Amino acid sequence: MPFLNYSIVVHNFNAGPSILPKEVFEQASQAILDYNGTGLSILEIGHRTPLFQEVVDEAISTTKELMKLDSDHEVLFLHGGASTQFFQIPMNLLNEQETAAYLDGGVWGKKAIKEAKLYGKVEVVASSKDKNYTYIPKGYAIPADAAYFHYTTNNTIEGTQMHAIPETNVPLVADMSSDILSTVMDFNRFGLIYAGAQKNIGAAGVNMVVVRKDMLGRVTRPLPTMMDYREHIAAGSLLNTPPVFAIYVCMLTLRWLKQLGGVAAIEAINNRKAGLLYDTLDKLPIFRPTVAKEDRSKMNVVFVMDDEALEKEFLAECKANGMVGVKGHRSVGGFRISLYNALPLESVRVLTELMNEFALKKA
Amino acid sequence: MPFLNYSIVVHNFNAGPSILPKEVFEQASQAILDYNGTGLSILEIGHRTPLFQEVVDEAISTTKELMKLDSDHEVLFLHGGASTQFFQIPMNLLNEQETAAYLDGGVWGKKAIKEAKLYGKVEVVASSKDKNYTYIPKGYAIPADAAYFHYTTNNTIEGTQMHAIPETNVPLVADMSSDILSTVMDFNRFGLIYAGAQKNIGAAGVNMVVVRKDMLGRVTRPLPTMMDYREHIAAGSLLNTPPVFAIYVCMLTLRWLKQLGGVAAIEAINNRKAGLLYDTLDKLPIFRPTVAKEDRSKMNVVFVMDDEALEKEFLAECKANGMVGVKGHRSVGGFRISLYNALPLESVRVLTELMNEFALKKA
Repeated sequence: MPFLNYSIVVHNFNAGPSILPKEVFEQASQAILDYNGTGLSILEIGHRTPLFQEVVDEAISTTKELMKLDSDHEVLFLHGGASTQFFQIPMNLLNEQETAAYLDGGVWGKKAIKEAKLYGKVEVVASSKDKNYTYIPKGYAIPADAAYFHYTTNNTIEGTQMHAIPETNVPLVADMSSDILSTVMDFNRFGLIYAGAQKNIGAAGVNMVVVRKDMLGRVTRPLPTMMDYREHIAAGSLLNTPPVFAIYVCMLTLRWLKQLGGVAAIEAINNRKAGLLYDTLDKLPIFRPTVAKEDRSKMNVVFVMDDEALEKEFLAECKANGMVGVKGHRSVGGFRISLYNALPLESVRVLTELMNEFALKKA
Repeated sequence: MPFLNYSIVVHNFNAGPSILPKEVFEQASQAILDYNGTGLSILEIGHRTPLFQEVVDEAISTTKELMKLDSDHEVLFLHGGASTQFFQIPMNLLNEQETAAYLDGGVWGKKAIKEAKLYGKVEVVASSKDKNYTYIPKGYAIPADAAYFHYTTNNTIEGTQMHAIPETNVPLVADMSSDILSTVMDFNRFGLIYAGAQKNIGAAGVNMVVVRKDMLGRVTRPLPTMMDYREHIAAGSLLNTPPVFAIYVCMLTLRWLKQLGGVAAIEAINNRKAGLLYDTLDKLPIFRPTVAKEDRSKMNVVFVMDDEALEKEFLAECKANGMVGVKGHRSVGGFRISLYNALPLESVRVLTELMNEFALKKA
């Protein structure tokens, strides 16, 4: 495990943009001065040159390899973040008279529902809003005639995660922004997968979209060229000037993951990180995890303390020990520890040691 | 002029993504390893932290200062390139029953026209398509009741440029992707200005949009949140995770331009670069500029040679002398030399010397 030997100054638990592998930072930094010995910065090379074509090609082929995608699935790197996909998806997949099924499992899913309503009918099959999205809804039915079923695999803000793919014949559409490529799953079961890159796969400013080709061409509305997935597929993600550097950083991060051993290898490490942190939380009553145990996220660990003064004190301790990004989202409070792929196990060790010491001191 | 002392290995005449100031490359490279001594990479800092807020604030305030914008105009940094604006503009500004006036002055203007037709009526007031867009149409009338008049200030592919702002009371909407901030003009006369950053102001993956507030809120159609300029204004360009690094590079490039003396200072340098190149072309009959003399672009200089074998030979000479990005767009052929703000005068000197030598050798 190369990153166990990290020389860490700062422990970055940011929820996104977030930590990337040290090698990625080093290579990206170098490429801005001189990309692969060309004497040119990666920022000043044309996007239609062989120099950049090889970057896009490797980003796409590595994604296909890591996800074990079949030939029905295309990989795109598009401008924008997941919020752009919130409307681009129904615009491309949902006719006005059709219904799309959505799961209301968190703040981001709720935003996706709002945008979908601009393009067709939306049936919210279940919601966990009643308990501030602290659990994943279960036992719902997905209408068999829905154009697609949309859900968020991991809820970044609330710290819940769906640990199984829903059983349905309706095409699955998933926002995987905060857990993509962190855990082994059958990516071929999805009609469309999207993820803002800035958590597990790269830098902010680019979206990864994986789409099964038969999902497209079904809507009757005319689509703006830049919003039409088919145009991007035909152009190999080079329809217009793409976010060159953001795609380059994705390529480096995907290459790093592949060299590490792929999704199964990182899942094993992610399990150790999440296991260590949740074990610590469960052992120390001073900290209180906020979500249902079976729905706990391995990417974003959310907890509070029952005494606000203690929360402030612990936050100050974290800061004093070089930890950043530990504060919970303003809508939840408390703490949120993000354990994305690139976060070293060492950072979790340092944090849990601090938690143990703190609990002992306050006991 | 700091960049006259450049130590140049490569002369980069790319049309975009294109050369940026050396200082920008150096600072951006450093920030990827350690942003401002924080121990964090610019790629891993949260977009809602004070660390990034100061980047956005400086990018916006420097733009306002360089453009001398009044308080009616807002500056946004949005995902995507100019092609995204081709549909976002009519979506926000044009009701279905209204007419927008467009000038068909080049390949990019033509693409903008296509997208506008999805949202309302389009009147093409004039076109230079008859002569492959080698001149800027003149003497046309803009309908007084048009929702706006759209034109491209500089045609990157064809090498033409509008050297005056059209006289009209209709709100002006301009694609300034390839000449923004290269020449002094009254930016306050525009209802909306947009520019993909990757030519004069930064790295690919972000759009600068300058909009006069009274242009907004007039259309009746519901807008997707991410496409609504008002939402971005309300959020100060932080509506969702923005293209953090691309905005950072814009900020550095804008800061560089300000420190250089602003738009008037760079215009003087740009005039010397374009003057030197066009004088050389006019002096050497072996090279033939393709566009009408009065419409010549100071940013993209397009010329051909009448002998294809000679073109190949000169292209090889350019390559042997470390010049990249000199080949013309596939639709025009010949050569295209881009002279964006960051291109040092020295590069133009080296090129024109080569042209002189080549012409002498072939005389």
